Amino acid sequence: MSGGILSVDQSPFQRLIGLELVRAEAGEVDMRLPWRPEFRRADDSDWYHGGILSALIDIAGDYAIASKLGRTVPTIDLRVDYLRPALAGDLMARARTVKLGRTVGVADVEVQDAKGAVVAIGRCAYSTAG
Amino acid sequence: MSGGILSVDQSPFQRLIGLELVRAEAGEVDMRLPWRPEFRRADDSDWYHGGILSALIDIAGDYAIASKLGRTVPTIDLRVDYLRPALAGDLMARARTVKLGRTVGVADVEVQDAKGAVVAIGRCAYSTAG
Amino acid sequence: MSGGILSVDQSPFQRLIGLELVRAEAGEVDMRLPWRPEFRRADDSDWYHGGILSALIDIAGDYAIASKLGRTVPTIDLRVDYLRPALAGDLMARARTVKLGRTVGVADVEVQDAKGAVVAIGRCAYSTAG
Amino acid sequence: MSGGILSVDQSPFQRLIGLELVRAEAGEVDMRLPWRPEFRRADDSDWYHGGILSALIDIAGDYAIASKLGRTVPTIDLRVDYLRPALAGDLMARARTVKLGRTVGVADVEVQDAKGAVVAIGRCAYSTAG
Repeated sequence: MSGGILSVDQSPFQRLIGLELVRAEAGEVDMRLPWRPEFRRADDSDWYHGGILSALIDIAGDYAIASKLGRTVPTIDLRVDYLRPALAGDLMARARTVKLGRTVGVADVEVQDAKGAVVAIGRCAYSTAG
Repeated sequence: MSGGILSVDQSPFQRLIGLELVRAEAGEVDMRLPWRPEFRRADDSDWYHGGILSALIDIAGDYAIASKLGRTVPTIDLRVDYLRPALAGDLMARARTVKLGRTVGVADVEVQDAKGAVVAIGRCAYSTAG
Repeated sequence: MSGGILSVDQSPFQRLIGLELVRAEAGEVDMRLPWRPEFRRADDSDWYHGGILSALIDIAGDYAIASKLGRTVPTIDLRVDYLRPALAGDLMARARTVKLGRTVGVADVEVQDAKGAVVAIGRCAYSTAG
Repeated sequence: MSGGILSVDQSPFQRLIGLELVRAEAGEVDMRLPWRPEFRRADDSDWYHGGILSALIDIAGDYAIASKLGRTVPTIDLRVDYLRPALAGDLMARARTVKLGRTVGVADVEVQDAKGAVVAIGRCAYSTAG
């Protein structure tokens, strides 16, 4: 993405967590979240806090829809299933558009840790009206 | 909370976002998220990014269960419904334990913005198995 | 309801399960599901099959929105949490409108068994766009 | 399935709706729901009532887990997204096990109508604790 409408760095929150958009086309998106020690769930832990994963899922799904619509969209609701602990290291989120309706879009997201294990899956509904 | 097992400041991620535990007793919890400009969804916006709200909901629900169990618990899954945009200002999350079973606990969470409007609601399942 | 737009008996599926609308006003609805042996999960069980509870929740939430809009609405998505087994006997579903937006409505539903125990809770999003 | 532990006809509710187990192996399941006029959402409609789809999803996901465990399992929670109206005709549900943990299992389910269109998707968490 060349600084277009899908640029992720125009959002203060997305800069705070350091999110990177790797690929976005035809309803599919890859996003990378580079590891930071601030993402740990506890001082003596090498695991991610789940809170950062739900944010990553929400955003990746949104950009999947945005890659079709040319604009980001408000989230209606978000569902996240945590499958296993996410270990320290970069995360990769792969999102794809499942439905793109007149008023509602749905995206599925899968988050892999640095070893390629799927650590969380998400499904999000977005408002496409307007 | 006096630095006990429910202390929120032992988590790097929770320090990153500046979360405060206001009250925790008998399965209910109030948490405050003091406003920071880094939480904005866009540089020219006064609205929160939704990603911070899902994290807040996940954590508040966890502490509601923890206030009963004396320890925080892994999240199984979560659902967040965004009801209206959250405007700049401190957020308050109120969480209550809906079920506390042998293997699964469920918590409901309501997030209010600085004007008292309910901006998001969440429902989370946690693993309570020892 | 006197055979108006909210009549539940114009739906073959709702007649199949024998659903009754007890009360509907101002965004809130009470529905009763009279017990039938066909609802058992197993031949040697006195417990309800969960499948009938999710249908009851979907419908009750829809009528909560309908009591505001004057028409039933398509379901966008639903979440059901099963809190405990539902024993043989009539079920009562209480649904309330949580949000009624221009394109999306949200309803919360609580299902009680004949002894008043809350056996399942549901949260549903509906499409309110004309 | 030859009348074994996965037999669907030992459940009064599953007989009521006429569910058929087509295939079950290694965490994956195909189930067929033969069309009945009683499944219509309205007397003058050729569309399914959504309530029957959520039941189908719950059951198919359960059998996906059961095909691994050798026994059906209690549903913790259920999420259904309705993608488009389901037209009259047999439905086919394809379910696969996404996670099979010590206390929680997760299954994904896709429901296709007679024309092969995906009409609904579901994600369900089940209690796998003995």
